[in-house]
This record gives sequence, structure tokens and C-alpha cells, in this order.
Amino acid sequence: MANSKYTYVRDFELPDPLLPGTFMLFRLDGHSFHRFSDMHEFKKPNDIRALQLMDHAAKDVMTEYPDIVLAFGESDEFSFLLRKSTSLYNRRQSKIVSTLTSLFTSSYVFHWPEYFPNYPLKYPPSFDGRIVLYPTEKHVRDYFAWRQADTHINNLYNTTFWALIQGGDKHEILFSRFAINYNRLDARFRKGSVLFRTETTLTHYTTEAMPPESIPEATPTTGVVTPVSLESSKAKSKSKGSTEKSKQKQKQPQTKIEIIHCDIIQDDFWNERPWILDENWVG
Amino acid sequence: MANSKYTYVRDFELPDPLLPGTFMLFRLDGHSFHRFSDMHEFKKPNDIRALQLMDHAAKDVMTEYPDIVLAFGESDEFSFLLRKSTSLYNRRQSKIVSTLTSLFTSSYVFHWPEYFPNYPLKYPPSFDGRIVLYPTEKHVRDYFAWRQADTHINNLYNTTFWALIQGGDKHEILFSRFAINYNRLDARFRKGSVLFRTETTLTHYTTEAMPPESIPEATPTTGVVTPVSLESSKAKSKSKGSTEKSKQKQKQPQTKIEIIHCDIIQDDFWNERPWILDENWVG
Amino acid sequence: MANSKYTYVRDFELPDPLLPGTFMLFRLDGHSFHRFSDMHEFKKPNDIRALQLMDHAAKDVMTEYPDIVLAFGESDEFSFLLRKSTSLYNRRQSKIVSTLTSLFTSSYVFHWPEYFPNYPLKYPPSFDGRIVLYPTEKHVRDYFAWRQADTHINNLYNTTFWALIQGGDKHEILFSRFAINYNRLDARFRKGSVLFRTETTLTHYTTEAMPPESIPEATPTTGVVTPVSLESSKAKSKSKGSTEKSKQKQKQPQTKIEIIHCDIIQDDFWNERPWILDENWVG
Amino acid sequence: MANSKYTYVRDFELPDPLLPGTFMLFRLDGHSFHRFSDMHEFKKPNDIRALQLMDHAAKDVMTEYPDIVLAFGESDEFSFLLRKSTSLYNRRQSKIVSTLTSLFTSSYVFHWPEYFPNYPLKYPPSFDGRIVLYPTEKHVRDYFAWRQADTHINNLYNTTFWALIQGGDKHEILFSRFAINYNRLDARFRKGSVLFRTETTLTHYTTEAMPPESIPEATPTTGVVTPVSLESSKAKSKSKGSTEKSKQKQKQPQTKIEIIHCDIIQDDFWNERPWILDENWVG
Repeated sequence: MANSKYTYVRDFELPDPLLPGTFMLFRLDGHSFHRFSDMHEFKKPNDIRALQLMDHAAKDVMTEYPDIVLAFGESDEFSFLLRKSTSLYNRRQSKIVSTLTSLFTSSYVFHWPEYFPNYPLKYPPSFDGRIVLYPTEKHVRDYFAWRQADTHINNLYNTTFWALIQGGDKHEILFSRFAINYNRLDARFRKGSVLFRTETTLTHYTTEAMPPESIPEATPTTGVVTPVSLESSKAKSKSKGSTEKSKQKQKQPQTKIEIIHCDIIQDDFWNERPWILDENWVG
Repeated sequence: MANSKYTYVRDFELPDPLLPGTFMLFRLDGHSFHRFSDMHEFKKPNDIRALQLMDHAAKDVMTEYPDIVLAFGESDEFSFLLRKSTSLYNRRQSKIVSTLTSLFTSSYVFHWPEYFPNYPLKYPPSFDGRIVLYPTEKHVRDYFAWRQADTHINNLYNTTFWALIQGGDKHEILFSRFAINYNRLDARFRKGSVLFRTETTLTHYTTEAMPPESIPEATPTTGVVTPVSLESSKAKSKSKGSTEKSKQKQKQPQTKIEIIHCDIIQDDFWNERPWILDENWVG
Repeated sequence: MANSKYTYVRDFELPDPLLPGTFMLFRLDGHSFHRFSDMHEFKKPNDIRALQLMDHAAKDVMTEYPDIVLAFGESDEFSFLLRKSTSLYNRRQSKIVSTLTSLFTSSYVFHWPEYFPNYPLKYPPSFDGRIVLYPTEKHVRDYFAWRQADTHINNLYNTTFWALIQGGDKHEILFSRFAINYNRLDARFRKGSVLFRTETTLTHYTTEAMPPESIPEATPTTGVVTPVSLESSKAKSKSKGSTEKSKQKQKQPQTKIEIIHCDIIQDDFWNERPWILDENWVG
Repeated sequence: MANSKYTYVRDFELPDPLLPGTFMLFRLDGHSFHRFSDMHEFKKPNDIRALQLMDHAAKDVMTEYPDIVLAFGESDEFSFLLRKSTSLYNRRQSKIVSTLTSLFTSSYVFHWPEYFPNYPLKYPPSFDGRIVLYPTEKHVRDYFAWRQADTHINNLYNTTFWALIQGGDKHEILFSRFAINYNRLDARFRKGSVLFRTETTLTHYTTEAMPPESIPEATPTTGVVTPVSLESSKAKSKSKGSTEKSKQKQKQPQTKIEIIHCDIIQDDFWNERPWILDENWVG
């Protein structure tokens, strides 16, 4: 039963490499999450357990794939930035899109009981993903600004909408009144989640680059900031890691992933962490 | 904080439609499953619980996506055939690849405890996926023949390999001896899993087309064969909305998904189920 | 002055193979030919010299590329069908599109003086091209039917439009009157040009397949129907021709390209020339 | 004879937009030019008439497409740089590749008699083309450096090779001897042809940026430098219509295309003409 006569079918699988020298932006969205959040009684307008679970899954993805240097999440979506020099899976589009989507999904279902101990999953949720290429840092900055501005707009609307709904017929509660108090809301809801990779001991950048206010907030999610050794990732072993990299195992700096909820539209976040878009950063 | 100045970044997301009029073959593989099966002590050479869990996840995907008319699984891989007229997600490649991979993964983790009640998952597993287009039925037939021939080759090798390993130093146990007894093995291991959609009451095709030996085996996976409305396919292809689906439920022919472990290289399987590749089948 | 430090830029050229097992339809259109035809005083509604020049260029392209089995032209457009098994330039899209467009253009300019002896070209005309893939013979048939139906519609409109224009203020000349006489028009204008490859001596197909009415019309263009030896084409020499083919040089049948102006929407044309869509035809 | 039942075939033509925000490098090569140059008795190692004809065709292409800001030619190849913000033909790949290849080819055949008055073309030559995307100016610089370094290597080899061949059996003429005299060769052969767009009156950049040595050489090709309106670029990008273009002619800055044969690997060429890579240059 030789299968050689059928192997020609492999020729129909066409190459799908992504253009070198460009940033890959991997974007992931919940599939039919309106229904999913209803079925699992998510709190309105924001359910902190659901958001922390999203953050947890995102951190798992970043831990597994060291070439992801930044991630941003809000609601049921997450965006991941891969360094532009990445050769992950030889930059094959379907391989990257499917694997990252799969790991995020898997982690989400796997960790669900930690965040919803009394609400077992009723059915398996799913996500869709896609990759968009951006040629320059400006495009990348504008992409993340677009998502955070969207976070603000959606949250402002949802917050006031649900305040009116939950306020019943007390219509004296006005839209404007909520807007005034908006800034008192948890930064997580207003700003979304920002995950980035940093070194445990920043030797390449002066500590001035890390002012006190950039210390991760003590949220349950970020309470345990796991130090991530780049080499510990099995993901790099095959086609992902270069042989040179594995040779460098001993010398490599320890890195960790931090989660904060801050503005990423203005320059401060980026100026304080220049290594995020620095292709030469060894971390 | 208008976000209009950033929305130009959306223009970088390029269309990725798949050629119309061709069969989509969605192929899914376990990611680093050698390590995963070691860590979770899968039985060698075949772990029936792991295979049944794969089948279960595959059936969940077929239930959700009525345009999948056939699936074939072996080891840690699964192949799904979408009818060539499908307009699922407007045939956008990344959307289809990522969503199907995600749902399969989610179902796999979700149902894990049913098949491994005493072995909690140690970490979230992942899969990768891709789509290959095939223009004709012959290509489709040859693709599935290729995978089933591969199943045979791998299983024959693994079965004899592990027999020798587990036989310790009793080297009189020869390769050829195992090959002789090979055909007594569970068909599941030799043939893989074949899932296809059929009508509960076959009105369009005579019952002669369903010989007794094609009745699904009473595995835990197939014990509950969920009736699936296929007519909802068109509606779902557009919006994937569940509301339209439930409204149309009554009028459509009842369909179910069956799992068998039989030869799909020869003509019999196909001749007996002509509706599988029949684009006009209403089921 | 080693150039090795710059050669990395080659990695940005991505592969663009076309799906195997599908028909390639190469379509070519005149670029700004409304202006071009005005500047060169083409006769209205149809200029037979311009159409014959198009036919000539199309025949040159077919002569150079033996995997083109059929071509159809009308006005300033031409469509070429490549056999679905073609491995021309390894099915690289840009290579095929650009080379065929270039050769057609070159031939058009080169042969211009033969058809417009008293009208030297005022400036170099250009064309654009693209490839569309079709999975089945039915798609191919429908594509050509679409173009010929379009020929009819355009020609009927143009013929009546220009009759009214040229008829001055004699408005009693009605649209319907011209339509009545429409069928007396030259078949070239009503049906467009159909070029196909055939054997000089049809040994594989009976001569009944070639009824008298399919003999090429004695137009200046088709007056000299050049017998084309497939091997005479230098195009096949490199990646285009397989080594096996060159070995078969001696035995191969002589082929020629014929031009007729007949209906290709109904079945007759296709039934009488079954070799056109026959992948196993050696010609 | 309605053609509506066939129009579905148009859906098989898939979109092929090129990533925004990246430089398009259009590269064109002669097809089987070894044979073509033999058949038309090109002088060895360099035929100045053939090179000037290539330059002429390149200038015609730049004149027609104002979004081309730079071109480089050697031997039978030419490279064209389109500004990264170009929206020419909505950045559709096949449209751009085929149209530019076609116009170059057409111009080459059209102008042939001016450069080879006593050698009529024996058959129509053709070219192939492709587009490579480059994200940054550095990639663009390195691409052109790669081509010019290649020019040098090829020319050095060809010059010495043909000197030996033409020197007959006088083998005392050594490879090294020719290399010593190499720098006395025409810069055109050593450096290739560089075409760029500039303003007739440089108002945006100081005249210091245009040192005397960058004045175009008085070749027949550059003798007539056609003023080209660059502002028409936007209008042409959409419709490529000539009517809009002529209406806007008056208001726009006059530009011209210059041809020089100088080094483009070092910084000088680029520093002296900063507008070439300046997206905001109105010219």
C-alpha cells in the first residue's frame, strides 16, 4: 500500500511567506462573544475576571513566543506585536496565525476555572485571528493608539449605557454625569491591558528609563510576574530558534513579562521603554 | 480623543479570499505533540482515549460548521473537507483557518476531563492549521487516500516498534510476526477515524447505500449523535448567527454526524455515500 | 566591490505560484484604447485592420507558448486559455502575466505597418494583463461564452449607434431596422476571433470532427496558416519544456493555429474539437 | 442572448493589492536577450545603441508614470522605484506589472529604428517584469547598490572576456592589463544608467544640491527632456485619464527626467538629491 501515488497532492499547498523586514501585528478577537458573555453571566459593563483571564492567556502566548515584544488587550480582543526581524516559522502566515490563535484559545479554556471557580464553561469558546503587516514604527504606534482610543470610546459608551440600564427609571441619572466620574474608573477598563517584555536586570538600558510609575500595578494577574527565560521556550527549538541562539543560552539576560494599564497613545510609554521597538535588543 | 486619525491603519489589512469553486481542505496538526503525549503518559503505540478526544473535537467542529462534509483523523492530525460551494466567512483564508483551529483546540481542552478523568492537563496544548485548495473530486479522493495510507504505514511501524520495545530482550519476537497479526488490531488504529454527515432519514438516497457495516461504532464519542441542521449552512455562512439557525430548525432535514473506521482509499466508501461530494445535496 | 552584503534584498521577492490543476485564463486589454483608436483614426464601429492586427499578435503569442490551447479576441481585448497541467515558468504569476503581455505588445507594434501601411504609429500603445484561475471545464466554457455574449452586445450597440451618427439627421433610420440587418454583418464583428491549436494531420481524432464549416475563413490574417512545430518554440527550452518532451521531438505531430469567427457559446464548437480541453492530447 | 448567466465567472478574479506604505520596486528583464542580441548583431561587450534604446524606453515609462521617482538600468534589465505612497491602479499587482512591462516593450520596439537605422527588427522582443516591496529607504538603497555592484562585476568580466576573444591568439593580453585600464571605459558601461525626476526650477531644494557633475550627459536619449507634470500623479493614479492631466498642466511645477551614469552605492548621489526619497516632495 505505497502512498507515493498520492503524494502529489502536497504540491497544492502553496507557500505563504510574509514580507521580511516588516512588523507583524497579530490580532485576535472573540468569536460570538456577545452570546458567550451572556451565557456565562459576565458582569456589565466590564467583568474583571474575564479581562484577567484574557491577560493570562496573552501572557502565556508571550511566554511561549519570545519574538512577541508587546501586546494590548481590551474586551474580547488582543493585539500582539512581533519584532520585524522575526523568523518565526519562516514567517509562514497560516502557521503563525493558527498556532498563536490555538495557544491563546487553549490557555483561555485551561485557566477558566481559576477566574470563574463557580461558573464552569458551558461550551468551548473560540477566537479568530489574522496578521497585518506594518512597515514602520509609526504605523505600529498608530495601530496601538487606534486600539486604545477604541477602548476609551467603547468603555465610555458601555459604562454610561449600563448605568442607565441598571439605574432603572431614575432618568435623572444623566449621560453627562457619568462622563464626569469616568476618570475614577479602574484604569484597566479605561486603558486596556498592556503587556511587554523587559529584562529582570536591565543592563542594556539605564534605570532612568524605568521610572517608578512604570512598575506594574498590583492586579491579581500581574501579582505573580513570572520571570521568563527565553531559552525555556520549547517553541524556539526547531525552526524558530537559530542555532546561534541556543549557543548563547548561558549568557542571555533573564526577561519577564509585565502587565500595566496605562496610556500608550502619548510618547511617554514608548520613550521610557526604548527596547520594545529596538531590533538589536538581546532580551 | 477621536480615533479617526489612526483608522488609516486598517488599510494595511489586505483581502485574502480563497479561489471560488474549489474544495477547501482544512488540515490541523498537534503542535509539539510528541512532548505533549509523553507529559500526559499516552499509551504506546496508540492511546484510545486520546484518539476519541480528537474525534470528539472534530465532531464539535463539524456540528458548528455544516459546510464541512467529511473529516478524517489519525494520531494528532485531522483533515476537514469543506464543500466547494461554501461561502463560509466569504472564503477569507485567515478567518477560516484561525476560527476552525481555535474551535478544535477549545473543544479538545474542554472535553479533556471526560477522556482523561485522572490525568488533569499539565499545560494548554495547541494545534496548527492550514488550508489547501483542490479543484476536483479526484484530488480530494487522492488527498484522503494519502492520509489513510500514511495512517497504515505509521501504525504498522509504531505497533511493531513498541512491541519490540515492550518485549524487552525477547528478540525472537520478529517484525514479521507482528505484521502477520496486524490485521487483528482495532480498525481505529489501522484505518483512522472517518466522520461524515448524513441525514437521519435518508430520503434522497436509497437505504441500500447504507450497508449494515457502516453503522457507527458505539464509542463514547458517537454515543450522542447530535442532529444538525444543514440547511442553516447558507445562513451561517454569512453571519454565523445562531438566531437565524434556530428559527429554521424545524423545516430542514435532520442530519447527523457519524464516525466509522473503514477504508476510504477504495471506491466502496464513496460509492455508498454519493451525497458527500454532491454539491446539490440539500442535507 | 563585493555585492554580497546587498544580496539579502533578494529575499524580499516572494514566491507567487498559481494553484496547480486549474486552468489559467490570461486576459489582456488595451490601455486607453479609446484615445489610441481616435488618434489613429480607426474606422467606426469596427476597423478590420485593427482586429486583424490583434489576431496576428495573438497568433504570435500562441506560436511561442504551446500550452495555450485556445484564444478569443474582440475589440481591444484578448483571452488566452492555458492547459491546466501547464508548468510554464513553474506557474509563477508575475512571470507569466508580464511575459505574455510583453510579447503581445511587442508583436502588435512590430506588425503595425503591415496592417496600417499609411498610418505610422504616433506613440507606443500598451496593454494590461491578468490571470484568472478556473477549476473546471464548465467555468472555462462559461468564461468564453461570457466574452462572446459581450461581443454581440457591444457590436450590436456600436453598429446601430454609428449608423445613426453617420446617418446624420435621417432619424427615420431606426434602431430596430439595423438590428434586422445585423446578421448580415461580417461574422468577425459579430462573433469575435477564435484561435485554436490543431494538428496538421489529425490522427488522434476522426476527420468527422472537422466539418467543412470549421475551415478557417480566408482573411488576410489566416490566409497563411503557419504550421507550428511545438518544438520549434524556443520558449520551451528552459524551464518550460520537460526533458522528456525534447526527446520526443521526432515523433510529435505537426500542429497549426487556426483562426475562425464562429459561435463558441453553444456545444458545437467544443464537441467538434474535443482535443482543445483534452489534457492528454499530445499535440 | 443575455450574458448575465455567465457573469459569475468574474468572481474568480481575486484582488491582489500590494501592501500600503512600502516602496514598490518594479524590475524588468529582457526575455532570451542572449539570442536577441546575437540575432541583431549587438556589439560586444557593450552596444551603446542598445543601451540608449533601453534608456529611452525607461524614460518613456517614467514620463507616463509620475510616481516613478528613480530608475536604474544595465544591460537588458531596468529597475524602477515607485514612491511608497503611490496609489497607482489602487496598488493592484498584476495591473501595475503588466502595464509597465507593456509600455516599456512597446516603446522599445517603437523607437528601435532611431537607434538601429540599418538593422530592422527580425522578430518582436519581449521582457518580463515583477514587483518587489521594500519597507524602508535602507532596503531601497541596498537594492540599487546591489544592481550597480552587479553592473560592475558583469562589465569587468565581459570587457576582459571579449578583449581576449577579439585579441585572437595574442595571449600576452592579460586579464590584469584590461582591469588596469578599466576605469577609462565609458561610465555608462561601468555604472549603468540612472534616471531620476527633478524640477526644472528647483524651488524646494537649494541649487547646491545639484552640483555641475550631475548635469545630464548630452546623449541622444536625453537630448529632448520632456517636461513632465508631477502633480498629475494623483489624478492619474486613479483613472490614468489623460483629460484630467492636460487640464492641470499649467499649475504644477515643471519637472524633467535626467539620465546620468554615476555611482549610486555611496551616499553622495542620494545626499545631493534628497527629494528622490522624500514623500512630501510636491514635484
